[in-house]
Amino acid sequence: MDRFDLLKKLAEKNDEKIVYLIFDGVGDLSAGKGTPLEAAKCPHLDAIAARSTCGFAVPIAPGITPGSGPAHLSLFGYDPLKFDIGRGILSALGVNFDIKGGDVAARVNFATIDANGLVSDRRAGRIPTETCVKLCEKLNQIKLPGVEIFFQPEKEHRAAFILRGEGLSGLLSDTDPQATGKKPLPATPTSEDPKAKYTADLANQFIAKAFELLKDDAPANGLLLRGFDGYEQLPQMQEIYKLNPAAIAAYPMYKGVARLVGMDVLKTGDVPADEFVTLKEQWNNYDYFFVHIKKTDSYGEDGNFDAKVHVIEEVDALLPQLLELNPSVLLVTGDHSTPCPWKAHSFHPVPVMLCSQEARIDKVTEFNETACIAGGLGTMPMVDMMALCLAHAKKLAKYGA
Amino acid sequence: MDRFDLLKKLAEKNDEKIVYLIFDGVGDLSAGKGTPLEAAKCPHLDAIAARSTCGFAVPIAPGITPGSGPAHLSLFGYDPLKFDIGRGILSALGVNFDIKGGDVAARVNFATIDANGLVSDRRAGRIPTETCVKLCEKLNQIKLPGVEIFFQPEKEHRAAFILRGEGLSGLLSDTDPQATGKKPLPATPTSEDPKAKYTADLANQFIAKAFELLKDDAPANGLLLRGFDGYEQLPQMQEIYKLNPAAIAAYPMYKGVARLVGMDVLKTGDVPADEFVTLKEQWNNYDYFFVHIKKTDSYGEDGNFDAKVHVIEEVDALLPQLLELNPSVLLVTGDHSTPCPWKAHSFHPVPVMLCSQEARIDKVTEFNETACIAGGLGTMPMVDMMALCLAHAKKLAKYGA
Repeated sequence: MDRFDLLKKLAEKNDEKIVYLIFDGVGDLSAGKGTPLEAAKCPHLDAIAARSTCGFAVPIAPGITPGSGPAHLSLFGYDPLKFDIGRGILSALGVNFDIKGGDVAARVNFATIDANGLVSDRRAGRIPTETCVKLCEKLNQIKLPGVEIFFQPEKEHRAAFILRGEGLSGLLSDTDPQATGKKPLPATPTSEDPKAKYTADLANQFIAKAFELLKDDAPANGLLLRGFDGYEQLPQMQEIYKLNPAAIAAYPMYKGVARLVGMDVLKTGDVPADEFVTLKEQWNNYDYFFVHIKKTDSYGEDGNFDAKVHVIEEVDALLPQLLELNPSVLLVTGDHSTPCPWKAHSFHPVPVMLCSQEARIDKVTEFNETACIAGGLGTMPMVDMMALCLAHAKKLAKYGA
Repeated sequence: MDRFDLLKKLAEKNDEKIVYLIFDGVGDLSAGKGTPLEAAKCPHLDAIAARSTCGFAVPIAPGITPGSGPAHLSLFGYDPLKFDIGRGILSALGVNFDIKGGDVAARVNFATIDANGLVSDRRAGRIPTETCVKLCEKLNQIKLPGVEIFFQPEKEHRAAFILRGEGLSGLLSDTDPQATGKKPLPATPTSEDPKAKYTADLANQFIAKAFELLKDDAPANGLLLRGFDGYEQLPQMQEIYKLNPAAIAAYPMYKGVARLVGMDVLKTGDVPADEFVTLKEQWNNYDYFFVHIKKTDSYGEDGNFDAKVHVIEEVDALLPQLLELNPSVLLVTGDHSTPCPWKAHSFHPVPVMLCSQEARIDKVTEFNETACIAGGLGTMPMVDMMALCLAHAKKLAKYGA
């Protein structure tokens, strides 16, 4: 029996509430002065640790550095090696596009094409975002039989392309030649499946019409598409876990992943304080909340240690607002590590604490990468955290007699 | 290669002896005053911990609360998500019935049926066990072509029904309507397999004859059957592990599960002291012993903390008798946790210690839920314990060259 078959069989609805407080990319390395979690003054996080079972979560598998998509799927209990969300889909989510099962998506660069039809700038001189928006409006007028086309601006020269219709496949090659001085490639099927041929033909027809429409828009007089993906609807949290879940996140990509697994995405503001207000306002309407703190990751990517410390302290100061809601289960962790010295995501396990009346409390009294080593959870797969939270909320029946 | 293929390939017979000392449901929660293992004075268990590698075992998967059947299969190295023993089979084991591969079993309630053929009491007024025994003797006279029928009394209104013959299937629906004022349902096949139809017909013929025989036995003038299961013989420990295994247990269900995996079930008394005498008497006849202590679970189910402490202390005082036999490997653990505050099984990992001359000794010197966090085994799947014990007893050859 696979994980979802098992959970679907055992999950029961009750009134207990689960909160996931996710500090994106919170895990870090010491670099001689301790990690940001160790340097931060976070009395509330530490007090929660003292009432929790602590440990580490491995996002994908030992040694594997996750992207944000698979890391969040793992947090939500979806095996990221089984449910693979491709780059094109993430790109569509990143522009807040409401992707549906059966859609095919790709990432787009506006590009400059010279008189000989060769790519002379793969980023079209990084056109301003406003230009990108206008060009996308133009391209959205293109019609093709049997499909809907969505062309969504992202930032500067970047956009997302989505095809919606029956019988599509994401098994297409990139049209981006990955070098200047070369012709854009045609989209070609990478599978024998006739759906791939059908979709490649549609993509190429679209590209031909787009080049025609853009011919006077240099430097953005061409398009390069890559990362084609088909999207099959994921199992929904309601159905597997019997939860009524909501997401509180400020960034489109995270809202998007949350929507894919069935969460209601709640309207909120840009800063953590807004997110905690939303949590309180919506408290009676849901039994599962995903609260996403983005900036720990952003500052990790910047290598900005002090700013990462500051975000942790900022959220810590807000925690009494969460604690007074008294969730049955509070899970605090990250989706992955983004060590400041790396300025990038890493594979390092993420500290985790699970606070619940039903937890077997260990001796850990601080929430950080050193203290959690002595935690009662040990080091476990992140994908198992959801079952553990459901269990602590007494939402799982006994397996067998 | 799956677990059993690997172990079957590597297992070698030698003279080393393995003892599993299983405190049923021993794992607990602190509830402020420490757990029963922490509260108990158990100098011998603690001394064993000092010579052991310690840690935690996860019975099924993180967050999953096991029934006794799957938890014991896991202890014996059988993946409980692959080898699923159903309710009907466990019921047959619980009445000490020697179930065979191909049998189909169901749980039975004697019930009261009113003049209109409707269920008026699903438990037949909880008839005395002696009445149940007499009625079962009567029902055992029923004959059907091509099959053997076994009708075994359990307790009060409960019994077990077993069909034995060629071509049977357990894929049948319950006849229990789960409410009074309704007619008993016919057993119906839940699969297209013709075996299910054949078995449903046999079950319904049996039920018709039974109702006829019981018509003057009100309040027990009817039967309700549920939890039909087919049983396929499990791989045997002799064959996979090259062990000659024996079980020392006082309760039928545990004897039954032990018998399913190939153990000789040794005659013993009702209390732990009897079990240790049996162990000594039979020491030279086997190379694997499963010694089962039931009452830690029973008192956990009752929420009786002090009594649970007392059972642990009672067994601790008997341990010198086990230690003087000098097993090569002694594994001490539970099959699952039964925390007193829950009065039920729980998902919490179970403390474990593996005592062997070949073990890598850690710094743990007490056997309990807090101390074992610092153990050298960490937190591991219970199903892997058997391979670990075989390895410490030098019963597993090298994999590859």
